[in-house]
Amino acid sequence: MAASSEHPAMTTKPHYLTGDKPGLQEFLDKFDVFLFDCDGVLWSGDHLFPGTVETLELLRNNGKQVVFVTNNSTKSRADYKKKLEVLGIPSSTEEIFSSSYSSSIYISRILNLPENKRKVFVIGETGIEQELNSENVPFIGGTDPAFLRDVKPEDYKRIAAGDPSILDPEVGVVLVGLDFHLNYLKLALAYHYIRRGAVFLATNIDSTLPSSGTLFPGAGSMSAPLIMMLGQEPVSLGKPNQAMMDAIEGKFQFDRSRACMVGDRANTDIRFGLEGKLGGTLAVLTGVSTKEDFVAGPIKPLAYLDKLSDLLNVQL
Amino acid sequence: MAASSEHPAMTTKPHYLTGDKPGLQEFLDKFDVFLFDCDGVLWSGDHLFPGTVETLELLRNNGKQVVFVTNNSTKSRADYKKKLEVLGIPSSTEEIFSSSYSSSIYISRILNLPENKRKVFVIGETGIEQELNSENVPFIGGTDPAFLRDVKPEDYKRIAAGDPSILDPEVGVVLVGLDFHLNYLKLALAYHYIRRGAVFLATNIDSTLPSSGTLFPGAGSMSAPLIMMLGQEPVSLGKPNQAMMDAIEGKFQFDRSRACMVGDRANTDIRFGLEGKLGGTLAVLTGVSTKEDFVAGPIKPLAYLDKLSDLLNVQL
Repeated sequence: MAASSEHPAMTTKPHYLTGDKPGLQEFLDKFDVFLFDCDGVLWSGDHLFPGTVETLELLRNNGKQVVFVTNNSTKSRADYKKKLEVLGIPSSTEEIFSSSYSSSIYISRILNLPENKRKVFVIGETGIEQELNSENVPFIGGTDPAFLRDVKPEDYKRIAAGDPSILDPEVGVVLVGLDFHLNYLKLALAYHYIRRGAVFLATNIDSTLPSSGTLFPGAGSMSAPLIMMLGQEPVSLGKPNQAMMDAIEGKFQFDRSRACMVGDRANTDIRFGLEGKLGGTLAVLTGVSTKEDFVAGPIKPLAYLDKLSDLLNVQL
Repeated sequence: MAASSEHPAMTTKPHYLTGDKPGLQEFLDKFDVFLFDCDGVLWSGDHLFPGTVETLELLRNNGKQVVFVTNNSTKSRADYKKKLEVLGIPSSTEEIFSSSYSSSIYISRILNLPENKRKVFVIGETGIEQELNSENVPFIGGTDPAFLRDVKPEDYKRIAAGDPSILDPEVGVVLVGLDFHLNYLKLALAYHYIRRGAVFLATNIDSTLPSSGTLFPGAGSMSAPLIMMLGQEPVSLGKPNQAMMDAIEGKFQFDRSRACMVGDRANTDIRFGLEGKLGGTLAVLTGVSTKEDFVAGPIKPLAYLDKLSDLLNVQL
């Protein structure tokens, strides 16, 4: 983990803003854009934190741009908007930035793929497929039931021979996200595509997925066998990787010095904001990292709150 | 990789024995036991090297004990004997030592599991199941079709709650080998068993499996997601780990100074012999490592041959 210890915010004690009305006002005045991590900040699992809706409303009413930034690659922006709706949070698809969308933008607008190498081999769910479609990126794999089968003896020979009926010669990218249907065949194909020159991308590299108050295999765990086999890390398009920040900036065209990242995890959210050289980072204590982590750990936010809705105490 | 640079054989130039009749004789006289890696030494894929059968016969006729040592965990010793037969190599089950057998011995005779924690959760194929049965070790998972299904929403809650109908409270070991039917459910269960205190074992940690002249996901790739999620390495029972050597010695009761490991890979086979402090290591150039690797690399065998059947030139 390349801790950016040279960043000034890393060595300064974070401001504790809960109950500090003038401090809160001064803090909010500094920013036009707020990037929100979601789980652990706005809600936990299926439980919406009290005051979340009102806090977002306060920001929007005061002319702040709100962006929801999620590493969840199984959902498209449209799916995520539905999730926000179910939780009672008004939003527009335009406010949502997911790692599946970030990956699709990176592939379509930043990777300069040769004409005959534009296809993506997907390990992942429908969220990725929908976002690739939205950027007109052709793909194979994903949820296609043709890939939900055992490896057959003849597959080894066809793969070894580079048979185009099993290894599509137009594949120039392997994109790995969370896949609840990961199997041996998909791993074998992904490995051979990358060996044959495909770019190795991951929607995100979180090793675990929080659910029901515990942890399950995350998107990073899908990349792990490939990383071990290839001795090569993927380019990750999720937090804290800056490819995601570049994609967000590309879309919203904001001034980084006037943007603030809000999150509950020091090593992903706060690090994401610090390495992106945003004007500010704001931590909340309703998720993974503790006060101790933020105050005494190596990655310090500019400020922190007990909970997000403490922002409602501001006098704007 | 802990290179055992203190071992004297590591710094001495290996003897080139092809065509050196007196050298060959002197070499063979030093040993009573020969441990053979198989693929790349006796055969390659489905192709038996000429002279393999005669070489093994020469050794046996001169009173040498022959042991076939394989990291292949998908086969039991009985399966492996059949494979040797098909290739035309006479053998007995007693001469075969596989990582699935090594793992079973380790669990039944070395791990001192509490009475109520003796069950093994298996990620792997029938070879492991047969060897666990041969040591009367109870297990779940493996090839049981009940585990070949999608994760359902209620599974998350049941796993999070430690529901004994999905997380067997008697599981005290997770054993991970090559599994052509790896899936999300098996990974999730293995992760939770280990988090709840089960011992994390791997039959072997080879990241790739050679087949049809190329590479496919190996047993190590099945452990990779768990290693990433847990931040913990498994105890591996295959070469080059010495748990396998201890198990072989436990079975054959040989004098290590009178034993020689024969192999084609410096970092597994030769390292296995050197770290096991065997009297000798013999490399052949018919597999993965090159002459350059053996002569100039960090892991040097005591001697090497162009091919195993060059041993037939000896004058015993």
